[in-house]
Amino acid sequence: MDHYRPSRRGIVFILSGPSGAGKSTIWRAALKSIEGLEPSISLTTRTARSNEIDGVDYHFVTEDEFKRRIQRGELAEWAGVFGSSYGTPRAPLDRAVAEGRDILLDIDVQGARQLRRQYPADAVTILAMTPSFEVLEERLRRRGTEEPAAIARRLERAEEEVAAYSEYDYLLINDEFECSLERLKAIIEAERWRVARLREGFAPWRR
Amino acid sequence: MDHYRPSRRGIVFILSGPSGAGKSTIWRAALKSIEGLEPSISLTTRTARSNEIDGVDYHFVTEDEFKRRIQRGELAEWAGVFGSSYGTPRAPLDRAVAEGRDILLDIDVQGARQLRRQYPADAVTILAMTPSFEVLEERLRRRGTEEPAAIARRLERAEEEVAAYSEYDYLLINDEFECSLERLKAIIEAERWRVARLREGFAPWRR
Repeated sequence: MDHYRPSRRGIVFILSGPSGAGKSTIWRAALKSIEGLEPSISLTTRTARSNEIDGVDYHFVTEDEFKRRIQRGELAEWAGVFGSSYGTPRAPLDRAVAEGRDILLDIDVQGARQLRRQYPADAVTILAMTPSFEVLEERLRRRGTEEPAAIARRLERAEEEVAAYSEYDYLLINDEFECSLERLKAIIEAERWRVARLREGFAPWRR
Repeated sequence: MDHYRPSRRGIVFILSGPSGAGKSTIWRAALKSIEGLEPSISLTTRTARSNEIDGVDYHFVTEDEFKRRIQRGELAEWAGVFGSSYGTPRAPLDRAVAEGRDILLDIDVQGARQLRRQYPADAVTILAMTPSFEVLEERLRRRGTEEPAAIARRLERAEEEVAAYSEYDYLLINDEFECSLERLKAIIEAERWRVARLREGFAPWRR
């Protein structure tokens, strides 16, 4: 193994993609199998489920506390989903970038847009999608958990999300899971060696 | 295996690096082991060695012919080395970019600079280097084929080449050969999935 690691800024990797594209599965597998990749722990106002741990799965806070965090500028992005608020704390991301650690976030198109604005030099955005809308529809149907009308709504939402593809840095066409994970690994490994992330006075060039 | 491939422009991958950094070995191994990667065949005015085939190793031409090619704008870059001229024909690169095929060139800092100017959107530049100058010196010494004065000249030249590192997209620190080859593969795989290279009207987004 090659243990040489240059001194560089950390990277905020952002994975987006419509429901059914397999994004969350890839996200979880990437965090398990890629060295030096950490999740971001979101802030939320929804109540914890029985299997969720505060500070591990989410930071659970009240509506008032959530608003205070926004007012203090402590959130890098936030959004409301089904009456609850979700947000990404800024401090852990800033720290990771400063310390050369990499974060992988699973976040929607709107969130990706906000984060890209906050970290223009340090965010790398990846859009996961099926090879076609037909495949997406088939996958949603095969889950068998939803009514045709709900599937139709998901497909409509997917169309909106995917319309923003040109804002992303990379496409992750999820045809075979193992290949997609390998490709995400390649993207992460490549980005770690971009000259633009190196700190000045990089050791090999000093004599 | 994932057989899905989007319609995209081809990429001109440029590998540079000082003598002793292992660049040529990695270049040869990459062409053998990475699918869909082709070499560029240079034009040269030097005479063919007994094991070299015209049109395979080089296109061997006269000085007059070489000048004519420059005048007609047929070379993407050229340089003189030890009294002979070397150049990269432009047409095969243009064709590769248009047809979505990828080229890997082994070329020096000056050549990389010229090619980057010719293919601002389609060139990806990679600088191979040892973890430090001390390691480079040791590798040159271990070859045992050169006088100390020649090694000193190579090191001086390496310093000049490496001073241009900020012009490159990626660093390829060649510590262990297998790791370096894997990293080059990751860079090539990642770049193939950059959204900026996709052709408009990308299939998955059409309904």
